[in-house]
Amino acid sequence: MASSRVTIIGSGNWGSVAAKLIASNTIKLDSFQDEVRMWVYEEVLPSGEKLTDVINETNENVKYLPGIKLGENVVADPDLDNAVKDATMLVFVTPHQFMEGICKRLVGKIKPDVEAISLIKGMEVKTEGPCMISSLISDQLGINCCVLMGANIANEIAVEKFSEATVGFRENKEVAERWVQLFSTPYFQVTAVQDIEGVELCGTLKNIVAIAAGLIDGLEMGNNTKAAIMRIGLAEMRAFSKLLFSSVKDSTFFESCGVADLITTCMGGRNRKVAEAFARDGGKRSFDELESQLLQGQKLQGVLTAKEVHTVLNNRGWLEMFPLFTTVYEISVGRLPPTAIVEYREHKSKSCL
Amino acid sequence: MASSRVTIIGSGNWGSVAAKLIASNTIKLDSFQDEVRMWVYEEVLPSGEKLTDVINETNENVKYLPGIKLGENVVADPDLDNAVKDATMLVFVTPHQFMEGICKRLVGKIKPDVEAISLIKGMEVKTEGPCMISSLISDQLGINCCVLMGANIANEIAVEKFSEATVGFRENKEVAERWVQLFSTPYFQVTAVQDIEGVELCGTLKNIVAIAAGLIDGLEMGNNTKAAIMRIGLAEMRAFSKLLFSSVKDSTFFESCGVADLITTCMGGRNRKVAEAFARDGGKRSFDELESQLLQGQKLQGVLTAKEVHTVLNNRGWLEMFPLFTTVYEISVGRLPPTAIVEYREHKSKSCL
Repeated sequence: MASSRVTIIGSGNWGSVAAKLIASNTIKLDSFQDEVRMWVYEEVLPSGEKLTDVINETNENVKYLPGIKLGENVVADPDLDNAVKDATMLVFVTPHQFMEGICKRLVGKIKPDVEAISLIKGMEVKTEGPCMISSLISDQLGINCCVLMGANIANEIAVEKFSEATVGFRENKEVAERWVQLFSTPYFQVTAVQDIEGVELCGTLKNIVAIAAGLIDGLEMGNNTKAAIMRIGLAEMRAFSKLLFSSVKDSTFFESCGVADLITTCMGGRNRKVAEAFARDGGKRSFDELESQLLQGQKLQGVLTAKEVHTVLNNRGWLEMFPLFTTVYEISVGRLPPTAIVEYREHKSKSCL
Repeated sequence: MASSRVTIIGSGNWGSVAAKLIASNTIKLDSFQDEVRMWVYEEVLPSGEKLTDVINETNENVKYLPGIKLGENVVADPDLDNAVKDATMLVFVTPHQFMEGICKRLVGKIKPDVEAISLIKGMEVKTEGPCMISSLISDQLGINCCVLMGANIANEIAVEKFSEATVGFRENKEVAERWVQLFSTPYFQVTAVQDIEGVELCGTLKNIVAIAAGLIDGLEMGNNTKAAIMRIGLAEMRAFSKLLFSSVKDSTFFESCGVADLITTCMGGRNRKVAEAFARDGGKRSFDELESQLLQGQKLQGVLTAKEVHTVLNNRGWLEMFPLFTTVYEISVGRLPPTAIVEYREHKSKSCL
């Protein structure tokens, strides 16, 4: 078998950490070419230099991951067509709103048998159901696509703190194990599970639960209540995923992409933070207002996902089965006060739990 | 059916909160007698008054739950024989080291068809396996015994913050539902599951994981690592329980007694706290020393349980299957440094995960 050539599409905070992980393995393992190509959306830095030039000279993504060496075998490339043309393994790690455009640009530019993996958390939930990023990639490009999700705060992995992740695959276990090999390091333990929808849905739905957890923090309800809300959230994530895809497995929710990512996201993270501020304020300032004030341009995924999931629940007549998801949505649009987060129990008899 | 008479054996912090929950229901529901008898280990307060007299006069357990009204239908009784003689439902909620003695005293003193429930977390793990408190009660008294476990910080439930709990039962679902009815309030949601061993083991084994989580806090390893260690801990809890009792169900670990109690215990709690101090100190002061310094006489369950579980693992040749449990034990006895908590991955191939 010829050795694989890896290209990373994306170079933000998490993309740069992925480059570091991958580059440390390609240089050691014979089955991968040393060079890791990273497509960088070109920017001119305040110094007047181009971001790609600085990355290639210093080995650091000075804008999105300053102070961390990516590995000398990482090559930043501002030309998407050139970056992908020889690749046999593609790692997608851009903000999710750019994915449709990028996929369109890649049609006809990639090798037909290339393997892909998506590290992108978030998806579009349309009326007819969620449009998973991995499906978007598979469908638009006609290639196989895995996902990698988990309790992965990029800056902690960048400084080599112990962490775990989950690779979700559809059918080909051998390909999944190859991705595991490419990402695993002594401080980053990766496990493959045959449940691509389960793994990918975990990465998205947890943000709704993080909103609920943040509300509990803002209301100062204590550890019991927060743990209860996280547990109920995990149960609704599981029930919703299984209703949408009968192939989803319970065991996936015990993996890093499930319970561990949920814990990390409900302890730190921006969804939790903004929801806490929202509740402290008694819901007087909207999520939109708090978002722009607290997040400096970053978007609040959880509120968006709550809205999208609500559309699905409403269309399918499932609202009463998901009292937590429904209540988060109602609170986020101002139809219920923040305190409603622990007042939905009268629906319990009809809930999915 | 005659209405049930409830007696609570124990009157500490959690026992007093249980009395409050139960008393609010017996007074409302026709199927229970209003009066809830609470056996109180008699103490003379600094004022010279007896604790039982003060509870019966003020409706408050001024020593163990000051400021909270238990309900006028709670009667404190210093005489164990008298407290149990008419009871048809017994709630056990004493420190677990007193249980053997109490069971011996109760032989021949209780009604033969009395139902019991244990709220006691902790058990004795002997060489031949764990001796569950519910089994001790069942075996010594020849009665059926359920358990109630969950993310239940007593003081938070006392002030009516939303919380959940799990009742574990062996066979009789009707009896379990009766316990659910007795404990459930709008702020305390109880669910019954047919997996008594799973529920009870969760309540004990989580304390080992809390030690690991505290070490991570002390080492300042961050949220990813802590979430990963909690996930691995939950997986080892599950695997250990299933090896000991093939009837244990995966779904139990998604209940309040499982993931929710684990979260609460790893966020707050004394096991986490002492382990954090131990790690900050580089393991220089022993757990025994820190325990007496930080806990004012309370015992550190996690270290004891780690030792007991280690005995079982060692005797059965399972050590390598449980790297987290094993490492916590080795650290607690000073054979490994605190940093070893994230350095057990070389055993991964043989682990239960």
